[in-house]
Amino acid sequence: MERNASFFTIARSFKAIFLDSYGVVKNHRGLIPGVQGTINYLRDSGKTLRILTNDASRSPEQQAARFEHQGLKGLQPEEIITSGMMAHMYLVHKAKSGRVAYLGTPDAAAYILRADCPSVPVSDIDLDDIDDISAMVFLDDEGFDWNQDINKTVNLLRKRNIPAIVANSDKLYPVAQNDVSIATGGIARLVESILNRNFIHFGKPDSQMFSYAFDHINQYGQFGKSDILMVGDTLHTDILGGNKFGVATALVFTGNTSPDTVDLDISASGIIPDYICPSIVH
Amino acid sequence: MERNASFFTIARSFKAIFLDSYGVVKNHRGLIPGVQGTINYLRDSGKTLRILTNDASRSPEQQAARFEHQGLKGLQPEEIITSGMMAHMYLVHKAKSGRVAYLGTPDAAAYILRADCPSVPVSDIDLDDIDDISAMVFLDDEGFDWNQDINKTVNLLRKRNIPAIVANSDKLYPVAQNDVSIATGGIARLVESILNRNFIHFGKPDSQMFSYAFDHINQYGQFGKSDILMVGDTLHTDILGGNKFGVATALVFTGNTSPDTVDLDISASGIIPDYICPSIVH
Amino acid sequence: MERNASFFTIARSFKAIFLDSYGVVKNHRGLIPGVQGTINYLRDSGKTLRILTNDASRSPEQQAARFEHQGLKGLQPEEIITSGMMAHMYLVHKAKSGRVAYLGTPDAAAYILRADCPSVPVSDIDLDDIDDISAMVFLDDEGFDWNQDINKTVNLLRKRNIPAIVANSDKLYPVAQNDVSIATGGIARLVESILNRNFIHFGKPDSQMFSYAFDHINQYGQFGKSDILMVGDTLHTDILGGNKFGVATALVFTGNTSPDTVDLDISASGIIPDYICPSIVH
Amino acid sequence: MERNASFFTIARSFKAIFLDSYGVVKNHRGLIPGVQGTINYLRDSGKTLRILTNDASRSPEQQAARFEHQGLKGLQPEEIITSGMMAHMYLVHKAKSGRVAYLGTPDAAAYILRADCPSVPVSDIDLDDIDDISAMVFLDDEGFDWNQDINKTVNLLRKRNIPAIVANSDKLYPVAQNDVSIATGGIARLVESILNRNFIHFGKPDSQMFSYAFDHINQYGQFGKSDILMVGDTLHTDILGGNKFGVATALVFTGNTSPDTVDLDISASGIIPDYICPSIVH
Repeated sequence: MERNASFFTIARSFKAIFLDSYGVVKNHRGLIPGVQGTINYLRDSGKTLRILTNDASRSPEQQAARFEHQGLKGLQPEEIITSGMMAHMYLVHKAKSGRVAYLGTPDAAAYILRADCPSVPVSDIDLDDIDDISAMVFLDDEGFDWNQDINKTVNLLRKRNIPAIVANSDKLYPVAQNDVSIATGGIARLVESILNRNFIHFGKPDSQMFSYAFDHINQYGQFGKSDILMVGDTLHTDILGGNKFGVATALVFTGNTSPDTVDLDISASGIIPDYICPSIVH
Repeated sequence: MERNASFFTIARSFKAIFLDSYGVVKNHRGLIPGVQGTINYLRDSGKTLRILTNDASRSPEQQAARFEHQGLKGLQPEEIITSGMMAHMYLVHKAKSGRVAYLGTPDAAAYILRADCPSVPVSDIDLDDIDDISAMVFLDDEGFDWNQDINKTVNLLRKRNIPAIVANSDKLYPVAQNDVSIATGGIARLVESILNRNFIHFGKPDSQMFSYAFDHINQYGQFGKSDILMVGDTLHTDILGGNKFGVATALVFTGNTSPDTVDLDISASGIIPDYICPSIVH
Repeated sequence: MERNASFFTIARSFKAIFLDSYGVVKNHRGLIPGVQGTINYLRDSGKTLRILTNDASRSPEQQAARFEHQGLKGLQPEEIITSGMMAHMYLVHKAKSGRVAYLGTPDAAAYILRADCPSVPVSDIDLDDIDDISAMVFLDDEGFDWNQDINKTVNLLRKRNIPAIVANSDKLYPVAQNDVSIATGGIARLVESILNRNFIHFGKPDSQMFSYAFDHINQYGQFGKSDILMVGDTLHTDILGGNKFGVATALVFTGNTSPDTVDLDISASGIIPDYICPSIVH
Repeated sequence: MERNASFFTIARSFKAIFLDSYGVVKNHRGLIPGVQGTINYLRDSGKTLRILTNDASRSPEQQAARFEHQGLKGLQPEEIITSGMMAHMYLVHKAKSGRVAYLGTPDAAAYILRADCPSVPVSDIDLDDIDDISAMVFLDDEGFDWNQDINKTVNLLRKRNIPAIVANSDKLYPVAQNDVSIATGGIARLVESILNRNFIHFGKPDSQMFSYAFDHINQYGQFGKSDILMVGDTLHTDILGGNKFGVATALVFTGNTSPDTVDLDISASGIIPDYICPSIVH
């Protein structure tokens, strides 16, 4: 483990850089100051870049537009990989008929659910008419009334033994310096606990997003695992996932992990990044 | 285990009868038809009666008034024991200063929280002014905005290391023939899972409500444990609690347990009632 | 909460004193030095005394003899209440026929299992002849081959849907200054996790042992809950159980809890003793 | 989902076949009768073959030799991928100094642990001399005294905050028609529960083994995910892992899943194979 490393120096050793979005490129205050310089540097050095995010609420196109709107130029939708895309591929592969029920926003539904299958928000379901509902998808923590629609979801899943898919397994996301909000994965865990069932969860640390990104960049060049660096702010998702997939990992302090507790966090979890650097802007 | 027993015949062997409320005296359709006859019979036979309920949302006075309003006459507030009363006694004993925060209705707050301590619904809390908050109490699943106030509770408990008390440990309650609603205990479990902490839960099967009822009836007469029958519709709360407390137990089919699955439920859980009877009205 | 209190001063306000055994009266080094003086003082002051212990491995008679052997005089078997006694009463009440299987020592079996029912250690069971086995009891972490007999227990409980009873719910017990051993409750949790089932657990913090002790002392005198002080070294068993039962509680530092972390432990758990005193000998 | 399919017919549509070992190629009685024919057929048809197994107890060389010894000819060590190999790669990448402690057999230690790092079975550890122990690895459920060495592991991990790695996340494995044995993952979960920590687990359903196999076969040919069929007997490991990785999946009835309960298992889990076939021999 190399500490206090300069991100620019580390990056030189790799052909491809995978970045977590929240806590690495931006946080609750907006873009990490100076991040445009990092992106420019990586571009100029010919690095291949991917964003790997457990934020399933928006499509790659929308996330790219949002980066642009926040002032970060040059990130392409093709470079952004979301846990929602993994859920989408699962649904395409495995949920081929019937209506798909969901909790979340129309935006998330639009890119995660199959275009060729009818879908219905839980709020619009008539619990007396559910025989054709073939799957339940947890897309986002917004876009519905928690009290009414989580309860309705519990009843739907008691009456219909169908796959339940979670597009983002995170329990929490930060909304301000010291404030968090319960994420999709937290809501799904509530329903799992009530029903005593386990759902199918997508997102880091599962190696799937890494595998997808790896295959994707190999369509444009030739990359081995040792050519890749994963950068993240969270030991249990970014670093564990990268370590298990077999790429090098760098932990930064612009998000969930603080320099004050990092040693304790690493030894307690046993999740060891290859590099620790303050941020991606130095 | 005696099956297909007549409740009237069983009751003859006991001096005191403890009844669960929901699933025994009433259910989602209202009073169990004929239950007035049972109450009258128990009164006429000189039995001592107590209702033991995990419904913390209303005070004994309100629950008695509600029974009256639904058409069941003669239940006194003193005969109704709620899990909320247990939480109240804990707070009286252990939370002696500061403001108490809560999730739930003003009705539940009025009888569970201490009259002599200031209390505040989570919705009214300013998260920048919480230094004097000394406890958090989960009272009810109603009376607040789930999305906004559960998230606020998570942040309150991240910032303040204070006791969190759950006035009703049930995860679910029935609202219609086949529909359920997430109860206070389910919401508390969501927050416990997000924070990775365990709160202090009240309600059956914990033997405390049994102990309270036992002491209470012994102020008016002389009762040993073998003089008491606990009647309930749920193996994991009513019957387990009664068995562990050491009183006789009877399971009825007017609530959570169905005759079709009762044998499997008993053998799988290892919770064995002394009697099984269809309802308390025969 | 009163800190740095003298146990002798505190004890004056109460008519009955309930003491945890391990961590209060003795620990891994033997008797707490000076504890004979405390017992003598309590006797001389006319206090009623009970030991409440989650150690189910030995009968009250054996535990009294062991205290005597270690040099502590004057504790009577009638004053010692074990979680095993609670399991025994459950079995007497609810397991009336068939053979009872167990993991543990013959000593524990002798006082916890019913004298009038045949019992069999798991090691002696023939898995092809188990139709008459009516219950499985986890008595102790000793007295059997863990590898062979825990696996056999898993298979027994897969083949027979019978009650499983845990005579001591503790996960751990201390064996030296910094060393612990997995206790009965830990072994039971392994089997619960493998089978995805919940067993019936006995021991503090469940209020049953408190209720038993309360009833027992009231056979010899008249005691209200405010007359009783529970003294323990563990917040999650002794203090939580005492608080929920409604008696006063005192935490000591001769066992699981250290003065260095007590404030953090109390605020994190929300379990608040009425008194904190270094030990019962001052 | 296609039911009652012939494995030979299904296999025709794919260029590579991934097989689980236990429950597909062999079971507690030995080789599945006729399986040599299937292997021969796949070879003759030019299919690429890999065995993906959560059995970490033996190296690919040993597993190949064992197949040979049981009478199945022609499986090469290079075609066998174990969860232990994934743990090995993690250790190579992330545990670079100090002694590595382990529970398991010398055979498992020999191929999973790093050849260039000293390792020590937990039984040989002196708990007063552990400052240089840098990781703990759960290799196998055999090769140690459960009582003594699991307790010692608990104490080691209480004293040293080091990574704990689980080479096989399975909780159970079958040892006879109706008998099971607790596997490495079950033992690790006991220690996790005692310590209230989560370890780093390897094995299906994690997509890592799939990713490794995918990369491996692409060194010898050109394979897309749609060219691959994963065959397994267990929904929660083989089929879920295959589905999440994005390859086609076939469920067989020669192991954990029975035709009587398959519909219930599929609907309850939401894990849907593309094909169901009785075995790989028809």
